[in-house]
Amino acid sequence: MPDEQPFGRKYLQNRIDKEFALARHIGVVVERADDSGLVLSAPLTRNANDKGTAFGGSLFSVAVLTGWAWLARYLDATHIAADAVIQESTIRYLVPVHGILRATLEPPTTAHVEKFRKMLQRRGRGRIRLIVKICQGRTLATLFEGVFAAVMR
Amino acid sequence: MPDEQPFGRKYLQNRIDKEFALARHIGVVVERADDSGLVLSAPLTRNANDKGTAFGGSLFSVAVLTGWAWLARYLDATHIAADAVIQESTIRYLVPVHGILRATLEPPTTAHVEKFRKMLQRRGRGRIRLIVKICQGRTLATLFEGVFAAVMR
Repeated sequence: MPDEQPFGRKYLQNRIDKEFALARHIGVVVERADDSGLVLSAPLTRNANDKGTAFGGSLFSVAVLTGWAWLARYLDATHIAADAVIQESTIRYLVPVHGILRATLEPPTTAHVEKFRKMLQRRGRGRIRLIVKICQGRTLATLFEGVFAAVMR
Repeated sequence: MPDEQPFGRKYLQNRIDKEFALARHIGVVVERADDSGLVLSAPLTRNANDKGTAFGGSLFSVAVLTGWAWLARYLDATHIAADAVIQESTIRYLVPVHGILRATLEPPTTAHVEKFRKMLQRRGRGRIRLIVKICQGRTLATLFEGVFAAVMR
């Protein structure tokens, strides 16, 4: 039962719903959350523009929440008392999204994660670059790169 | 009466409300729309996270709509039958926003606008870089730079 794993799907869904009022309206669903990856989605209906494609602000919101979720989950699961925030990001809209908005995190390398953890523990503040992809079928539709910061409480 | 100017506040508010379902939920208000500039805002309440600051996805949405609104208004007011879409953007979150999310467009130079218009009319497709700032009091809180494309219908 994946839902009963600690720091799994339900854990992240609860955090997102509780911490971000807009996420509930966008309809963000945590589809997968485990150590190997993270998938968040949102239905097109609430997030469409009048051309029937996903609004850029909704695509950004699902992507930034996917990055935030990875970091918030990592901090919590490794017992680091820090808050995760987005610092800067770049998003490229390659092709329009006509269906579900499904965002997949590209997991950072172990070396990057270790560097981030050490910086955070030494200086009370760390930064990590996370990449999130939104695909339409097999085509990469939206590419998000975000620099997230963690700040010790 | 600024509201009765063609391509003024009411015109843009109607377009945004009609064309972007999420904008209505975010509570986007067109505060100013004339040839000298554009100001859009959204209330904090619907867009806050659990720390009482504006969600990054909401700040992005208000900023991208401000850029879109400038371009959509420009195309309509100059009788160019083209659609405006966001192509790529960078956003920097400099300090948290604790109050109203108010986005101001930095108007592009006449030279940039002319270059864009010529490209669009020659090739049926043009690109323009637009800058949007969200301030908290006098402090720049969020800096958005977007490349928008216009495509002839």
